[in-house]
Order: sequence, then structure tokens, then C-alpha cells
Amino acid sequence: MIKIAIMGYGVVGSGVYEVLKKNEKSIAKKTGGKTIDVKYILDLRDFPDHENPQLFTKNFDDILNDDEVSIVVEVMGGLKPAYEYSKAALCAGKNVVTSNKELVAEHGTELMAIAKENHVNYLFEASVGGGIPIIRPLNQCLAANEIEEIYGILNGTTNYILTKMITDGADFAGALADAQCLGYAERNPEADVEGYDACRKIAILASLASGKFVNWRNIKTEGITKITRSDVAFAEKYNSVIKLIGFAKISEDGEVFSRVCPMVISKNHQLSDVNDVFNAILVKGDSLGDVMFYGRGAGKLPTASAVVADVIDAAKHIHINKFITWKQVDKDFMADPDAAVFRFFVRAESEAVSKDFDGAELLGSENGEWFFVTKEMTEKAFLDALSGRGAFIRLLD
Amino acid sequence: MIKIAIMGYGVVGSGVYEVLKKNEKSIAKKTGGKTIDVKYILDLRDFPDHENPQLFTKNFDDILNDDEVSIVVEVMGGLKPAYEYSKAALCAGKNVVTSNKELVAEHGTELMAIAKENHVNYLFEASVGGGIPIIRPLNQCLAANEIEEIYGILNGTTNYILTKMITDGADFAGALADAQCLGYAERNPEADVEGYDACRKIAILASLASGKFVNWRNIKTEGITKITRSDVAFAEKYNSVIKLIGFAKISEDGEVFSRVCPMVISKNHQLSDVNDVFNAILVKGDSLGDVMFYGRGAGKLPTASAVVADVIDAAKHIHINKFITWKQVDKDFMADPDAAVFRFFVRAESEAVSKDFDGAELLGSENGEWFFVTKEMTEKAFLDALSGRGAFIRLLD
Repeated sequence: MIKIAIMGYGVVGSGVYEVLKKNEKSIAKKTGGKTIDVKYILDLRDFPDHENPQLFTKNFDDILNDDEVSIVVEVMGGLKPAYEYSKAALCAGKNVVTSNKELVAEHGTELMAIAKENHVNYLFEASVGGGIPIIRPLNQCLAANEIEEIYGILNGTTNYILTKMITDGADFAGALADAQCLGYAERNPEADVEGYDACRKIAILASLASGKFVNWRNIKTEGITKITRSDVAFAEKYNSVIKLIGFAKISEDGEVFSRVCPMVISKNHQLSDVNDVFNAILVKGDSLGDVMFYGRGAGKLPTASAVVADVIDAAKHIHINKFITWKQVDKDFMADPDAAVFRFFVRAESEAVSKDFDGAELLGSENGEWFFVTKEMTEKAFLDALSGRGAFIRLLD
Repeated sequence: MIKIAIMGYGVVGSGVYEVLKKNEKSIAKKTGGKTIDVKYILDLRDFPDHENPQLFTKNFDDILNDDEVSIVVEVMGGLKPAYEYSKAALCAGKNVVTSNKELVAEHGTELMAIAKENHVNYLFEASVGGGIPIIRPLNQCLAANEIEEIYGILNGTTNYILTKMITDGADFAGALADAQCLGYAERNPEADVEGYDACRKIAILASLASGKFVNWRNIKTEGITKITRSDVAFAEKYNSVIKLIGFAKISEDGEVFSRVCPMVISKNHQLSDVNDVFNAILVKGDSLGDVMFYGRGAGKLPTASAVVADVIDAAKHIHINKFITWKQVDKDFMADPDAAVFRFFVRAESEAVSKDFDGAELLGSENGEWFFVTKEMTEKAFLDALSGRGAFIRLLD
């Protein structure tokens, strides 16, 4: 029997408890006969109506000092006290499983190194893509490949908002209000709509794919708040949709170019059909070509099921450090964003602006705004030519 | 250093060699520093122009009796002598990695049991979906779920043919000839177009998902040879496409319903956009909901990259049996196909036929053939009512 502790009994934490109970028997089969038993639940709140109120504690030391607990599930979110607790648990020789993308993006390098020193694992499948398997496939299934590109729709809230703007002709504020109504967006939606959530996730994927710690602070991030109904309509005219994309490209010499921004995507592209709260991650490997993973990127049970898959994996490798992931590299290996080449979809304040772009394709005008698509050019050359006379969205080609 | 042998130097075997050479350094990082060294290549043919002709042998005993060889890659295809060789290698304490779906579907249960006894692994990620990760995700990433349904486009050749029929208005014979021209279909295309290949693959997935050996002989299989241009055109009128689907549904009490057949799929369904030689597998877990895996289901380097991922995994677990997969179960657990409920897309010889189906939706007629879609009904009731007066395709709802 494997004794575990769950730290944080919110949406994901209670989901983990539920999945472990519901599928207890089939889970035991997958660990080779060992049952997974929840010994503690750490939460500052009281849950007097819980079926097992005696599991709850408000004191982390109860977990830390109990040698029977070999796996700790950290689903508290945030950096404090999750960082301190995770570190202490790993140092004490306990495996830690998390869904905490903030913590993995900030301190994952250190926590994985501590796990390795202590012959345990720090696992975080649920930190990206909710229930979609992506961390383990990148680590294991695609291990024979050099990963060249990752493009992901990594945030369900923004994808829901953009889908509403496309299908219902809503504007951003209306679609956001709708998402808040349905519980898909938080009352303070900044982390989602400004792209910060997607940024942490692509930073984790870029680190995994390149083998080097990619600091999320070095990833330029733009959200979707400035996208208008006209942008959506003219993208449609161009047989395209607008999606918030986190991407990372890794060059042969190991340079990493990563960014989070809205992108105009042709309807022929696989990612264009990923709608509502769904997420998808497209990975290009040198041997494999394109492979795509699609599913629910959030939600109680999908995320919990990814956490529990890691718990099962940890249970099978209690004292074997399994994952070789990324390392801290001091040299700067991030590509110069100015040198990146894109085509640009432009909403300009006059038709004249388009004349400054050789070979630009004019899409039309609405309410005094002119829409056109440029040829491929570097971002620097584009920004120089635009010179502030309009808004723009990059194309995913 | 890990010494391996490659048995069979055809398309996949030479791809495995190529991927191992090309990505030697990054692969060594992923095994924790151990390089993978090809010591033997077994093939009856001569390859005098190979860069390392001394690797080749025609004698399996060279490999079997060499204790240095800890991993054997079996990419010969077919049952003989692949079965005998794989068994002998496992009994000798060597890990075996394969892309051989026929062998896995036929003798996988026994070979996995032998692997377990000998503390080695029998790994077959490449047997289904080519380079798409699916075996390992089902085994590990989705381990917290009871798998309820799997729907797969599992054969690239038939998907290419059906795509041609849809986009170019080709008939079956013309689309097949085109596929043969491009090397996507073999001169004898029976294994693909009659669904036998897809049948082996869904048998493997159904076994993994249910934990019980699903014999491919118990899976009713229909191919795509009887699909006409009119079928495709009237499916289009119904805002749908026709795809060859292998599916498995696992009920709460463990009953398995599995089949390979063409299906009419709404264009709103994720699988409807999977075109050309691409494959996709949609998995529904009880906690996770739907998750889809998409990519190239065949081809030299994609398949080789899946084989090499297994080699890396085997290298990390040389004497640890890692996978808990399926068991032989004597009791009959296959669902009665007659009792299955579908809607049916019918091409009938007269309008009168549709009158025998309550609530049937008439789509129209062409060249004296009438097309309609029935309401949900059991297959038995449907066949009784149709009574041989037309052809039909099931709907994927």
C-alpha cells in the first residue's frame, strides 16, 4: 500500500480524491497491486461534511514527518507556500506530483534537481494541457526526435472567448462576460486574457523540448484584449480564424524562439478547429513530422486524472528518479524576436499604410479601418514600416 | 553502452538505424548517458553498400547467443519467424521492441507474459498509429481513467483513398490506383482496403483499454471496397464524410464491443478533419472526457521514431518489467453485435424501402438509388427491416 497526502483541497485536490476513490481497483492493477491510500489532506479550510474528516490537517509537518507518506500531491497553486512545502517533501525523500504551472515554471529546475539527488520524482503532467497527455509524451514517446516546433492552444478561457467572437460575432467584452457567467473565466481574468497562463505553459514545454530552462520572463507575451469584431470578420474573409498561440521553435544550434500572441490561422490548419474550452498542442519532431494532442485543457476531473496518472507513475518508481528533463544553462540561447519572420495581418488607420508594404494583400475596409496582409518580413522591418499606424496579428504559416 | 540488434532491414529497420545515428547524442541524454549501439542487423538480403556492412548477419543465433545484446528490435513483420525469434530473445533475457501489429495481436499476450517472467519488456508503441504516441499514453498517461471508448482512423491507405473520393470525386478503383501510384497502397491492397490492418490495431487498443486479450478474430470487420461515389456525395449532403473507423467500447461491467467498418461522420466531429494518410485516435476516459492523438500513422521515420522511443525506454529499464497490460480471460466478454444500436445511412434500391423505417430521413435519389438515414435502432432490427434491399453505412454519433 502506498500512502499519499493531498495538499490543497480545491477543485483539483477534491478531484484527485474522487478519481482515486472511484477507480481504486483499476488503479491498483496499474501499480502492480499496490493500492493508493490518502492518509492526509492539507487545507486551511474546514470540511466538516467530508466522508473522511479525520484525513484533514492544517499542519504540513504532519505530512513531512510521517515516513509512511511516500507521495505528496501539491495542488495548492501559487508559489507560497507550495514551493517551500514541495522542496521540504523532496528533501525528505518523498515524491511530489503537481498541477502547479506557476511553480514548475519558476522553480521546476531546482525542484527536479533536488528530486534527482534524493532518488525521487517531481512530476507535473497536469501543469500543461490539463488532462491531455503532453509532458510524458514529450519526455518519452517523442524521445527519439529532436523537437523542432511546438504550437499550442494552451488556455481554455481565451479559446472559449475567441470561439464566441468567431461563431456569435460577440465583441471581446461580451464574450468575456459570457465566459465569466459560465465559470470559464475568473472575475479577475488577467492571467488568462493577457496570456500569462499560456506563457507559463509554453515555458515549461519549451524547456522540456530544448532540454534547457526557458525562463517565462524571456517569452514576449501578448493577450487577446485588443482583438476586435472587425479583426475576426476580416480574418474570416481570409479563410482564417484568430487563436491565442504559445509557440516555441528550436533551431538546430539550440537557439529557442518562443512567444505567446494571438495568431491568424488558416482554416485548413489542424489548430483552427480547436474550439471552446478545448486545448491542443502540435509538436513537430525531426523524425516524426507533426503530431497533435487534443482534449480538455482544464476542469476538475480531467486535470485530476493527469495528477493521478503521475501518482501511479510515482508509485511504480518510488525510489528511482525517472525523468531526465531540463537544465539551467547560463549562456543566452533565446532568439532575437526582432529577427523573426512572419506575415502580418494589419488593421490600419488608412489605406495609405498598406502602400508602404510591398506586395501587401488588401482585404477591405470597415468603419474607416483598412485590413491587409503583408508578405513575409522580419518583425523589425514590419514595425519600422508600420510605425504605429495600426494594430496587427501575426500569421501562423 | 547498450548493444542492440535490428531484425529486418526494410523500410522501418533502416529508419531505426537512421534515427539512432542521426540523434545519437540527444538519445544518449535521454537514457541517462548510455549510448545505443547497433551490434547486429539481421536480414537475409545483402547490403554491400551499407556504411557498416560488418553489422549484417543472416544467422539469428549470433544475436541470441551474444549476452552483450540487451535489446532486440523486431521489425521483420509477419508471424514467421518473428514469433519464434521474439520468444527466444525474451526467454534469453533480452528486451524486445517491435512494430509488428500482426504478431502483437496474435501472440502479444504470451510474449508479454514471457517478458514479465524474465524481467524484461516487450514493447510495441510502433504497432499502432505509426509515430503517434498511443500505447504509452493508454498505459500510463490515462492510467487514472477507466477507458470507455476508442474510435480510430487507424489505416493511412484507406484514409487516403476515402479523402480522394471526397475531395476529387474519384471512385474507389480510381482512388486506389492513385494510392498505389504514390506508394501509399500495396499492389495487393487487401490487408488495407478490407480493414484487416485496422482490425489488428483496434484489437491491440481494445486489449490495452479493457485489460483483457481481445482476439482480432472476434472483431467484425468490413472494408471500404463497396463505397460508391454516390455514397460519398449523399454523405456530403448530410454534412458528413465517410471514414474507415476501428472502435471499441467497454461497458461498466467489462463487456467489449469492437468493430471495424466505414462510418458516416458529421463534419462537426473532430475525426472528420483527419485527411490523407494521417491517422487519429480518439479516446474517452471516465475522468478525462475526450482526448485525441493525431499524426502520421505510417512512414519510415515516424514509425522508426516510435520504435526508437521504445528502445530508449527499454534501455532505462533493462531488467525491470515495466508494463502491466492485458491478460487472457477465458470467459466470453464480447458484446453481441446484433444488439448494438446505430443510426444507419442507407442506399436502397427503391424509395419504398425507406417506408419500412419509422422516422427515416430521405436524402434524395440518384441513378435509381435512394438514400436515407434511419433513427437509432438495433442492428438486428435494422437488418430485418432492410432485408437485403440495399447497402448501408453506420453513423458515428
